[in-house]
Amino acid sequence: MRSRKATTPIITLLSDFGLRDAYVAEMKAVILSIIPDVHIVDISHEIEKFDIRMGAFVLASATPYFPKGTVHVAVVDPGVGTKRRPIIVQTKQSFYVGPDNGLLLLSALREEVSRVYHIKKPQYMRPKISTTFHGRDIFAPTAAYLAIGCPPFKFGPEVQDYVVPQFAKPYMKKGELIGEVMYIDDFGNVVTNVSSKDLEEQETTIGDLLHVRIGRKRFGMRFCSAYGEVPARTPLAIVGSRDFLEISLNQGDASKALSLKIGDSFKVCFR
Amino acid sequence: MRSRKATTPIITLLSDFGLRDAYVAEMKAVILSIIPDVHIVDISHEIEKFDIRMGAFVLASATPYFPKGTVHVAVVDPGVGTKRRPIIVQTKQSFYVGPDNGLLLLSALREEVSRVYHIKKPQYMRPKISTTFHGRDIFAPTAAYLAIGCPPFKFGPEVQDYVVPQFAKPYMKKGELIGEVMYIDDFGNVVTNVSSKDLEEQETTIGDLLHVRIGRKRFGMRFCSAYGEVPARTPLAIVGSRDFLEISLNQGDASKALSLKIGDSFKVCFR
Amino acid sequence: MRSRKATTPIITLLSDFGLRDAYVAEMKAVILSIIPDVHIVDISHEIEKFDIRMGAFVLASATPYFPKGTVHVAVVDPGVGTKRRPIIVQTKQSFYVGPDNGLLLLSALREEVSRVYHIKKPQYMRPKISTTFHGRDIFAPTAAYLAIGCPPFKFGPEVQDYVVPQFAKPYMKKGELIGEVMYIDDFGNVVTNVSSKDLEEQETTIGDLLHVRIGRKRFGMRFCSAYGEVPARTPLAIVGSRDFLEISLNQGDASKALSLKIGDSFKVCFR
Repeated sequence: MRSRKATTPIITLLSDFGLRDAYVAEMKAVILSIIPDVHIVDISHEIEKFDIRMGAFVLASATPYFPKGTVHVAVVDPGVGTKRRPIIVQTKQSFYVGPDNGLLLLSALREEVSRVYHIKKPQYMRPKISTTFHGRDIFAPTAAYLAIGCPPFKFGPEVQDYVVPQFAKPYMKKGELIGEVMYIDDFGNVVTNVSSKDLEEQETTIGDLLHVRIGRKRFGMRFCSAYGEVPARTPLAIVGSRDFLEISLNQGDASKALSLKIGDSFKVCFR
Repeated sequence: MRSRKATTPIITLLSDFGLRDAYVAEMKAVILSIIPDVHIVDISHEIEKFDIRMGAFVLASATPYFPKGTVHVAVVDPGVGTKRRPIIVQTKQSFYVGPDNGLLLLSALREEVSRVYHIKKPQYMRPKISTTFHGRDIFAPTAAYLAIGCPPFKFGPEVQDYVVPQFAKPYMKKGELIGEVMYIDDFGNVVTNVSSKDLEEQETTIGDLLHVRIGRKRFGMRFCSAYGEVPARTPLAIVGSRDFLEISLNQGDASKALSLKIGDSFKVCFR
Repeated sequence: MRSRKATTPIITLLSDFGLRDAYVAEMKAVILSIIPDVHIVDISHEIEKFDIRMGAFVLASATPYFPKGTVHVAVVDPGVGTKRRPIIVQTKQSFYVGPDNGLLLLSALREEVSRVYHIKKPQYMRPKISTTFHGRDIFAPTAAYLAIGCPPFKFGPEVQDYVVPQFAKPYMKKGELIGEVMYIDDFGNVVTNVSSKDLEEQETTIGDLLHVRIGRKRFGMRFCSAYGEVPARTPLAIVGSRDFLEISLNQGDASKALSLKIGDSFKVCFR
């Protein structure tokens, strides 16, 4: 695939603001006031309020597909106005701007973190900083100045002790793989923390029958390469577009059908 | 009205992905990686999951207003990963990119279809094709390359046996017009398959009282030229912005008030 | 902060159309057909149907952050197709385009209104004007032509008798300040009509305990400078990002917890 000539900078936005209020538009207005030629791409504004884990996961789902040099702004920020720091994370691939609460790091760590900076210099913020909306008053202008080409060390001192989120990793126990539900998408697909690599290590191949235990319930499901390989409304296991094992229902909502929610653990017996 | 100078290409997106997950942003990232200067316009991502008919209808509502040369990408794709083909539909006016399941054709047929191609060439796809997300891995890059000016025959062989959706047409029976509910919009306006032309043939004029039968219920309603011609909360009949007969409630939700849903049939006596 | 060089024009859109239907995309298609290089920013399309007051409030929340010359289109329009006029409001800062029902004026008055015009000239509208969708057929093309640089007096005659909305102002009575709930945001923050200036006049300072009466209920709450100054799930009073007093719950939904809704009045005793 041909690569993109770096012309118009890209800024992405992710938040728990929803789309009913004007908050997202206020951020865009601030960005466009500083940098008139920019692509602003919404990743999601429907993150559950204050759910840093979900925000981190959705952010990390989208970022691998953006070109080098993209500036990602993410705001799920229960600590806004307190001592939690506003930060810039510079990776080999992108810039991340947002609160120092772990939100940015799941994605940033996958791209290899180069440096992290504490945003402190008022000349790169709005003249009046509200205590309730740093997205508009600190993060949006920071992103715009980074997109213009302002180097990240200009915004404040480097920090080493930034927050790194801990997410559960799957592990083997008595011949079973113990995994956890990381995310449920809008289709009801149940995204687990079991990667395609974990499955390869178990020598799982397409067509295998997997035995999945969730609490006291047991489900047999086919390991498929497409939803349509089982009849409609039938559960299946599949490596999804994020490269993790997902439990799905062909043309249906697996989360509802199997009563699965984020944080639930499950066991897989491969046999 | 002056016409637009063809400068920045336009790509539209329609899907049943919702706005909570990162899927739409992943498609935009892929597009912007290939073509940095483009307008990406969301038509809707709130199509009911797997509802090809609704997707086709909403797509066809929007496309007449876009300039010549626009590339429309639509993804309502219950058969993703199976043998259903990814296609490009070239019309006199636009390009359509999506699954070969009828979704694109309601709109494309109105613009006159020139040629249909089966997307096959891997050099215009992402290097790794997931089986669950052709929107990102096939349709988004195809749209970007079309917008750059890559001719459609380069993507794969021409096909003739593409899927054409069948939608009900209204017909006369015993002096009554039998129609069907095609769509209900977010205001609760009930969009029917009766066109303004069908009404002209019945010599319906503004101010006429129409007798509408839905199941065993009968409603008299005025044929109006504006919602405000009847009191608030009163049903009326009107030719809507899509040029079809709509049953509406002034400042209210006709679908709820009259218990009408998509697929319901009704009879109109014009007298 | 550096100011933006006026290059790409900006058009904002606000409506009660929702994001499920194609209406918003139809407006964007019309705009892009006239002006190919433009930033279109959605302020909100989730205004409650026909709620002019909410539309006016959300519009006025966003507009202060956009650069000079921005064209704001707002459509909450229960009177579409009747005699209510389509207007352009020119202020010292922006252009506003929409129905003459008060929607535009809350925001426009804050920027100082220069002139108001009745949009009448058909050459700046779509060739066929539906009676149900002036957003697409009148307001979108008007905005595009304004963004191109067409002067507002070209669209029709100046008018003086445009609709100005009346919103309640807070007042003192027996040593208590009587205010009203203007808006509840998606977080459940309760935005009141008490401005930061009103609070200064009462010599309220951070840390004060405010006694708030809502109907027969009484709540004591701390006047804070950040949500995190009280424990999670605790009510607090704070000057929000719009510079009005808000009643909030740290990491929770104050509107639900205190059963407050738009239009409710409350009393504050400062002591």
